[in-house]
Amino acid sequence: MTRIAVSGAAGRMGKMLLEAVERDEQASLAGGVVRPDSSLVGADAGELAGLGRLGVPLVGKLDEIIDDIDVLIDFTTPTLTLANLALCAERGKRMVIGTTGLDDDQQAALADYAGQVPLVFAANMSTGVNLSLNLLATAARALGDAGFDIEVIEAHHRHKVDAPSGTALMMGRAVAEALGRDLQKDGVFQRVGHTGARSAREIGFSTVRGGDIVGEHTVLFAAEGERLELSHKASSRLTFGRGAVRAAHWLMTRDAGQYDMQDVLGLK
Amino acid sequence: MTRIAVSGAAGRMGKMLLEAVERDEQASLAGGVVRPDSSLVGADAGELAGLGRLGVPLVGKLDEIIDDIDVLIDFTTPTLTLANLALCAERGKRMVIGTTGLDDDQQAALADYAGQVPLVFAANMSTGVNLSLNLLATAARALGDAGFDIEVIEAHHRHKVDAPSGTALMMGRAVAEALGRDLQKDGVFQRVGHTGARSAREIGFSTVRGGDIVGEHTVLFAAEGERLELSHKASSRLTFGRGAVRAAHWLMTRDAGQYDMQDVLGLK
Amino acid sequence: MTRIAVSGAAGRMGKMLLEAVERDEQASLAGGVVRPDSSLVGADAGELAGLGRLGVPLVGKLDEIIDDIDVLIDFTTPTLTLANLALCAERGKRMVIGTTGLDDDQQAALADYAGQVPLVFAANMSTGVNLSLNLLATAARALGDAGFDIEVIEAHHRHKVDAPSGTALMMGRAVAEALGRDLQKDGVFQRVGHTGARSAREIGFSTVRGGDIVGEHTVLFAAEGERLELSHKASSRLTFGRGAVRAAHWLMTRDAGQYDMQDVLGLK
Amino acid sequence: MTRIAVSGAAGRMGKMLLEAVERDEQASLAGGVVRPDSSLVGADAGELAGLGRLGVPLVGKLDEIIDDIDVLIDFTTPTLTLANLALCAERGKRMVIGTTGLDDDQQAALADYAGQVPLVFAANMSTGVNLSLNLLATAARALGDAGFDIEVIEAHHRHKVDAPSGTALMMGRAVAEALGRDLQKDGVFQRVGHTGARSAREIGFSTVRGGDIVGEHTVLFAAEGERLELSHKASSRLTFGRGAVRAAHWLMTRDAGQYDMQDVLGLK
Repeated sequence: MTRIAVSGAAGRMGKMLLEAVERDEQASLAGGVVRPDSSLVGADAGELAGLGRLGVPLVGKLDEIIDDIDVLIDFTTPTLTLANLALCAERGKRMVIGTTGLDDDQQAALADYAGQVPLVFAANMSTGVNLSLNLLATAARALGDAGFDIEVIEAHHRHKVDAPSGTALMMGRAVAEALGRDLQKDGVFQRVGHTGARSAREIGFSTVRGGDIVGEHTVLFAAEGERLELSHKASSRLTFGRGAVRAAHWLMTRDAGQYDMQDVLGLK
Repeated sequence: MTRIAVSGAAGRMGKMLLEAVERDEQASLAGGVVRPDSSLVGADAGELAGLGRLGVPLVGKLDEIIDDIDVLIDFTTPTLTLANLALCAERGKRMVIGTTGLDDDQQAALADYAGQVPLVFAANMSTGVNLSLNLLATAARALGDAGFDIEVIEAHHRHKVDAPSGTALMMGRAVAEALGRDLQKDGVFQRVGHTGARSAREIGFSTVRGGDIVGEHTVLFAAEGERLELSHKASSRLTFGRGAVRAAHWLMTRDAGQYDMQDVLGLK
Repeated sequence: MTRIAVSGAAGRMGKMLLEAVERDEQASLAGGVVRPDSSLVGADAGELAGLGRLGVPLVGKLDEIIDDIDVLIDFTTPTLTLANLALCAERGKRMVIGTTGLDDDQQAALADYAGQVPLVFAANMSTGVNLSLNLLATAARALGDAGFDIEVIEAHHRHKVDAPSGTALMMGRAVAEALGRDLQKDGVFQRVGHTGARSAREIGFSTVRGGDIVGEHTVLFAAEGERLELSHKASSRLTFGRGAVRAAHWLMTRDAGQYDMQDVLGLK
Repeated sequence: MTRIAVSGAAGRMGKMLLEAVERDEQASLAGGVVRPDSSLVGADAGELAGLGRLGVPLVGKLDEIIDDIDVLIDFTTPTLTLANLALCAERGKRMVIGTTGLDDDQQAALADYAGQVPLVFAANMSTGVNLSLNLLATAARALGDAGFDIEVIEAHHRHKVDAPSGTALMMGRAVAEALGRDLQKDGVFQRVGHTGARSAREIGFSTVRGGDIVGEHTVLFAAEGERLELSHKASSRLTFGRGAVRAAHWLMTRDAGQYDMQDVLGLK
């Protein structure tokens, strides 16, 4: 059994992570950390996540539970993540980090700690999305210079406030890198009015918003006479939590180092 | 047998119309009209369209053949179409008109002639597209004010120079009219960067370009818990020609008046 | 406010109905009925459904709460539904019935009670599915005898034990009735090995099973040159509950009679 | 310029191959072979294929033109293909073979000749389909034992007489081999009536037939919470011809040996 604690347990993603740990048969929930001043300190982690009482009280500081865990999963903020990482590195505890928005200095600090302890760092932990990035690079190398036009189409729920999605951009970058193209120059993010004919190098992005769509991404390779489409459809945010738990298990047999989900899935 | 002539026979759409007439068992090709100064005057219409010799020589003026036809199909320019319509009205010949770009005066002139002779006037003659407009209005009335977000997604080949397609706009208008919305105000034609959450009234448009896609349109109605999608996919431009021939047959039993494809398909 | 009680509250669908009632702003949860010998009698309906305490204790008999309700929603068994209906008819209470499997006698009995009290009876309460049935009949009349082949494709989660789904069959029947075809004779439920060419009258069914797919149905109309596809995708079983609550509100202004979801949605 | 001749030029696929060769800028059409007793012997290959006169008369025997060609493309019958291969091996001419239905002895004979001359042998020459086989094997290895159910869905025109398609079976086999499964045992080709829940090992196949669909194949990997779909859509049979011409060019720089489209596309 891998003993896993969750940082930021009171947030929306934190509750998903609690549920993903609890539902995994090889994992045991070893703790949940909330802000020290939260009224939830002492409440039961399972009841917070709507899972029934689990006998795991929420704590306000990681060091209260760190000796009883194997891995910390952290999808919070750069500052908090790095503070947690400093403590984990000191105590030899592994980390799975899904926090986004780290600047260059913060990424360098994270890489330093990875010399002391094994960690997985990835913006999207879904098995399917990470496999897609690998398949897309293969497809782009085979098709991108053979007359196939490349388009990325994404759809999300009505509450999403940015476009295109981070995952759509990740997919576009995977394709662009495989082909030596540059998303800054070759990405086309809108087409309205008289656009002229499509150029061969461009990578187009389309954005659909509506209802409760959790997240759907399609990359289209279209030539004269045939099309190849790779689509990923998330039906539950639990998907991201399950990927994090998979990464936690995988870390148990690794040496110190910084890994991503391509490593976890054995795609490198 | 309905005797049909094609105006603008030498153009890309004209050849499709020749083929559609020739392949229809209830229709006979009664003539093809090209520009008076064209080198094709006197050539065989079938050979022009890659159908083998049909024994129908192309003519430079409609009045050379008008007494031998029942219906003229015309997908050309506003000026030529109105000149042809004047002659058809005088001689009591029906017309199927797919010409686009008529201004208000030209549309008024067309409506006047429709007092003398039956004619069908429609920007898209495809059976499926026209049926879609009817279904979309029904769906919009049932769903549009019941928590369903509406999006229009279209895909075309790499050579298309404008966006969104005219058919996507027709679909968007069908939805907007059914709901008392205004595409000028409620249409959203791009989403890039920080967009904020989607508003309930907006009708979003997305554009995909690539390969040889003849034309695909999807209208999405997305709510919490369910989605309805209506998609039309054209696999051949012949589709538009076949709709025009269907309209020509239908006109044979009509009185003078201006009709559209909703009338032809019995959807009103 | 429409005061709604739920029959069969302890079942999977019952809990969904409790949630749908609770989440509707125009509805108040007026009761939940479970079996008289259930250990849940007296427990809180909200806690049963994972909604937190609502102060609505579950009861073992409908007549304990019937004076305090406007509408009973019942997705249970034919025998229980008819017993509940007898009581509702006597007390002038409306019903929304989603129970399936009634035999001819039971359906006749239900129709008799509908002379006394307004009720909605439908196998699938989803707004989108019921609208689809209406759109499919329109599309079939316009396309089915004009060279379009018709296929129904459905996908559900790995746990579903029958094929094709009841909703796929409803859609197939809607199409068959509109065209004067007979699903017994014209339905094709498998194609393996040497099948020969497709006949024009057949209505084909395909079944996909996998993962957690809640329920997706597509009806395809495919001709030479174009295709029309109507797809419904459920992302949450709550959809069916929400349709039932919508039906309950609608019933409040109706006279005695038997209605279906086409009536509720104003599609007749 | 690669000088290419086409065997079986009078057939439907033969004409496509003539067109694909003619439209390729690096290839020249060096001959077309028909049956010795055909009335087409001596007719122009371009006129046969609807391409206009090309000055390439059809011949009844391969040896009349073999000295003037680099590569023979042959999509005919096993017997004819092996006879042509004997002659090509003797004269040092390369071959691209798309013939299907060879028995074990015929496949062994083909492999023998490959010791003398370079040849490509593949049942489907489409770039996209062959890339798909590679991507599917990768995806199956990453997902197949991680809780993802696998389904293959294919759609073809109304004239197709067998099901599932050969390409659907190729895709199913690619997945099965990657996972150590056996299509004979784990393939499920129909689901009707009470099927019971889906087993984890099964690979399901669904077949759609209608209209003029050239060929569409989707492989679905569906888990709790997410789905990955890989779709290939052919819009023109010319696709297969273009793959054959690509193989012909590629063969020019190869040594004797038997290759497939994975080799041609650089995917091994």
